[in-house]
Amino acid sequence: MRRTSALILIGNEILSGRTRDDNIQFLALRLGELGIPLREIRVIPDLREIIIRTISELRPAYDEVFTTGGIGPTHDDITAPCVAEAFGVPWEIHQPTFAMLSDYFRHTDFNAARQRMAHLPRGAVPIANPISHAPGFTIGNVHVLAGVPRIMRAMFDELAPTLQRGTPVFSRTWHCTSLYEGTLAAELEAIQTRHPDLDIGSYPFHREDGYRGVALVAKGQDKDDVSRAAQEIHDLICAKGGTPIEGEPHR
Amino acid sequence: MRRTSALILIGNEILSGRTRDDNIQFLALRLGELGIPLREIRVIPDLREIIIRTISELRPAYDEVFTTGGIGPTHDDITAPCVAEAFGVPWEIHQPTFAMLSDYFRHTDFNAARQRMAHLPRGAVPIANPISHAPGFTIGNVHVLAGVPRIMRAMFDELAPTLQRGTPVFSRTWHCTSLYEGTLAAELEAIQTRHPDLDIGSYPFHREDGYRGVALVAKGQDKDDVSRAAQEIHDLICAKGGTPIEGEPHR
Repeated sequence: MRRTSALILIGNEILSGRTRDDNIQFLALRLGELGIPLREIRVIPDLREIIIRTISELRPAYDEVFTTGGIGPTHDDITAPCVAEAFGVPWEIHQPTFAMLSDYFRHTDFNAARQRMAHLPRGAVPIANPISHAPGFTIGNVHVLAGVPRIMRAMFDELAPTLQRGTPVFSRTWHCTSLYEGTLAAELEAIQTRHPDLDIGSYPFHREDGYRGVALVAKGQDKDDVSRAAQEIHDLICAKGGTPIEGEPHR
Repeated sequence: MRRTSALILIGNEILSGRTRDDNIQFLALRLGELGIPLREIRVIPDLREIIIRTISELRPAYDEVFTTGGIGPTHDDITAPCVAEAFGVPWEIHQPTFAMLSDYFRHTDFNAARQRMAHLPRGAVPIANPISHAPGFTIGNVHVLAGVPRIMRAMFDELAPTLQRGTPVFSRTWHCTSLYEGTLAAELEAIQTRHPDLDIGSYPFHREDGYRGVALVAKGQDKDDVSRAAQEIHDLICAKGGTPIEGEPHR
């Protein structure tokens, strides 16, 4: 079964370059394994109308929508009330979360800012946060996660078993260092044409250390079809006089 | 003068998690310095209708739009013809580029795949590619760059002097390890209220090595206003019993 997802990164810190994103690749890989591959990512600022509009636009378009960022206690953490507004429900105290956080903060100060983190959109189900306690949540097909990578990953581990899986995405890669994309392009397109349900990708790499070449990837939800295309890619590299090396060009 | 930009990453490899993005932060920082800060980023697949729709949606909304990816010689490199279609102009041989590439490939094979890279939308101005020669291009306010980070950066260096600058974005950061966001939130919101033209951001960090705390950032286009807000952030950390450390929590 084909399922799809989208990801919304909410936060000025990626747009300004302050922070290098460390959430996209993790979620892309995990969602691929679950058979809910990402089809679109948006990075948007901490602005109320933009958050509401983006959620409203993406949630009918994909099976699952994930957000990261903007669920802490400070004034720039506005994701949760915006999601409530996008769903047309109140943003209100969630009693079990309020009780849990008031216990967690009993030795410091469970002040108004921290109490904000005990508010969820009405009807939302919390996603446990084993690291810093303030939960994420799911409402409808929208899953609201923290922006801090360690916390986001822990929340995703909590959430993943509850997601409806699709057919996983399989991928096989060959790379070579002696050939260029321009030499392979025509026959590679023929492979794509013979395997219309797969994505046949060509990715040149030029490393700072001079290691360069091209990686050819067959990807799709039919494992046998992926294997056949991978064999054709292997044979193409050989036919052009290259040496196919299985996998990505790590070194 | 306030100018804005958007970035479109075109490529299945980011969505699948095959490739970790290495272009967003570079462009975000450089565009901030040029006073054309990024306001939105989209990551989209190599699909014709989606590329055309995204370009058509973003180019009237921002002063400048940048794309990365999809300008090589293979079947999945469809950015240039899609941009032509979005602008309603033909995608055709660009004679100076054709001459340059036919000379560059004179000892190999200037085949049909490579000749594709000598096609530009009518009216586009090439952006030189000092590394692998096939150019990017500018048409209207849309700037089409390579996806390979080394090549993208070289193209951006060629392009940058031609861009109309805006007022640069200034940023000052203090961090501390002994305080939490929840302790600082109310007074931080008051700083934001006193400096409505700035973005006052609060970014908790939790490192794998146990180094944790919060970074507070004042950012905006009025340098004096940024300095005043930064002083208030410094004083807030002191008032709460923390030790302010200038800059980001690198270590």
